[in-house]
Amino acid sequence: MAFCRRRRRSSSALVLPLILLLGAFGSASAQTDPLPSWNETATKQSIVAFMQAVTDRAGSKFVPPEQRIATFDNDGTLWSEQPIYVQFAFALARVKALAPKHPEWKTSQPFKAVLDGDMKALAASGEKGLGRLILATHTGMTTDEFTRTVMDWISTAQHPRFKRLYTDLVYQPMIELLALLRSNGFKTYIVSGGTVEFMRPWTERVYGIPPEQVIGTSFLTTYRLGTDGRPVLFRQPKIDFVDDGPGKPVNIQKVIGRRPVLAFGNSDGDQQMLEWTAAGEGSRFMGLVHHTDAVREWAYDRRSHIGRLDKALDEAAARGWTVVDMKADWKKIFSFE
Amino acid sequence: MAFCRRRRRSSSALVLPLILLLGAFGSASAQTDPLPSWNETATKQSIVAFMQAVTDRAGSKFVPPEQRIATFDNDGTLWSEQPIYVQFAFALARVKALAPKHPEWKTSQPFKAVLDGDMKALAASGEKGLGRLILATHTGMTTDEFTRTVMDWISTAQHPRFKRLYTDLVYQPMIELLALLRSNGFKTYIVSGGTVEFMRPWTERVYGIPPEQVIGTSFLTTYRLGTDGRPVLFRQPKIDFVDDGPGKPVNIQKVIGRRPVLAFGNSDGDQQMLEWTAAGEGSRFMGLVHHTDAVREWAYDRRSHIGRLDKALDEAAARGWTVVDMKADWKKIFSFE
Repeated sequence: MAFCRRRRRSSSALVLPLILLLGAFGSASAQTDPLPSWNETATKQSIVAFMQAVTDRAGSKFVPPEQRIATFDNDGTLWSEQPIYVQFAFALARVKALAPKHPEWKTSQPFKAVLDGDMKALAASGEKGLGRLILATHTGMTTDEFTRTVMDWISTAQHPRFKRLYTDLVYQPMIELLALLRSNGFKTYIVSGGTVEFMRPWTERVYGIPPEQVIGTSFLTTYRLGTDGRPVLFRQPKIDFVDDGPGKPVNIQKVIGRRPVLAFGNSDGDQQMLEWTAAGEGSRFMGLVHHTDAVREWAYDRRSHIGRLDKALDEAAARGWTVVDMKADWKKIFSFE
Repeated sequence: MAFCRRRRRSSSALVLPLILLLGAFGSASAQTDPLPSWNETATKQSIVAFMQAVTDRAGSKFVPPEQRIATFDNDGTLWSEQPIYVQFAFALARVKALAPKHPEWKTSQPFKAVLDGDMKALAASGEKGLGRLILATHTGMTTDEFTRTVMDWISTAQHPRFKRLYTDLVYQPMIELLALLRSNGFKTYIVSGGTVEFMRPWTERVYGIPPEQVIGTSFLTTYRLGTDGRPVLFRQPKIDFVDDGPGKPVNIQKVIGRRPVLAFGNSDGDQQMLEWTAAGEGSRFMGLVHHTDAVREWAYDRRSHIGRLDKALDEAAARGWTVVDMKADWKKIFSFE
């Protein structure tokens, strides 16, 4: 309104609003902290410095916008994975819900263990038993049916310790980091060992990450005509691809076809994704979330049966990757705190 | 410059530039034809009507921006596929280039046929022979090495009939359609029977489609540490997934996780992708490029050995899908005409 007081300032009238519009985000982020849930530690400084470097067109570390790919593990990196993976809690709930249709489960392991609440017998069934539970609850239906089942469960099921929706147990500092990356032109991806269609129904709402930017373990899917003549995609009881460890860079190449500039994980299953990211040319950022806060969340690393962080922690130390100390670096872990 | 002549127009000084900036595309497309290489036929009208319907927020056919996914076959849909698939021309050139390192090829089919220029013997080697040529020339190297080979070839190799770069043989009307879709908020994808990493090095430059929006047939790839200790992704001589026919909707689900709103193909290999697109709710657009112009390009359909269009043509007629008659609907086929 003030730009047109005098006729000789008429050229500003065109230029200034454009600058204001184009620079809107830039000035907002200069004035307010885009990472308010991070303490003012070296970790936060390394993130902010990286972001400034890759977006500084005049600097030597500039990364062209189309190359700004950031990949994040999900379980233990973006949300809690204790005491059991959320997807596994979903599988247990589905076994209970489907039991009336499967009378044979009453006498067959590992299903009997789930129905009896016998966690010891369940653990004894080992990886093979857990695999059977996953297949029995995640396959044998169309993709649309599975999506509906996930949406129904995730919108009501509660975490046993926090008595809150699982989607409340996402890490607020990481939500802020995802938003900061996107505001700086990054495409943010999830690259998870969890199965891809368990995540897609809710990642856009919770993380701002659309389905097409979610990569994960997948089941064999086949195209066929349904009974009404309409085509369906049917989920077969067979793993198609395990998106973990060396599978992560392989799947990143398969789906994205570009090497990430930034990658974040929390366990040895993310080690190769970080190595692949680190091996690219130019600016790179490799991050690990280290679970060090038994009071607000959990503390675990080298000896944990879930999200073990051992070899990757050594490699991070040897190569100078950023290790987020949850207790020291995060002012707030969950938004409800 | 004219907005500030009088003080009482100062409020326009702020508002007008914003409108001009925000509405730049909208007003431009209202005034200029975004599809100048299309004749004014029913086909063009159906495209324009679809675009208006899905973007009209007040209408019953509105499609929310995040759901605007458009998938395109590549060979025969976005560029010429005659007299042989471009990727196959690349394979033949690579056999010749690699022959000095493979003396055994002089006496072994189908390599001998390629080196002798004996197209009859090559054809006699059948699909199995062609598969061996593809594996021998597309695998056995790192992803980075393969990308460099493709870039070198595609920037120099010429089409035998037109004596031009293969990337000059893209269809100008389809380039305009891709741009129109993107200007209306669509994400444009390639979903091709061709191998994905043969396309990714040049699709952004030629079609405006970035690598992460290119889907195709893939080879098994493995992660390993190179001799210098740096990780590489190595292309193994084994097909991972055939992105053709029913494989197209399967791969669309795997990679995108959303059903397309618009899909375009040109052969029976695209039939299931169009069926899957058609089976979604709300507005849909299914298109087939029918090669009807033997003078400017080629004319072929039901009996062609490349890009056979037979069952899909019948289904298009039965279900009212849009069939582009290249000769009648396209004012210009290639930009160099």
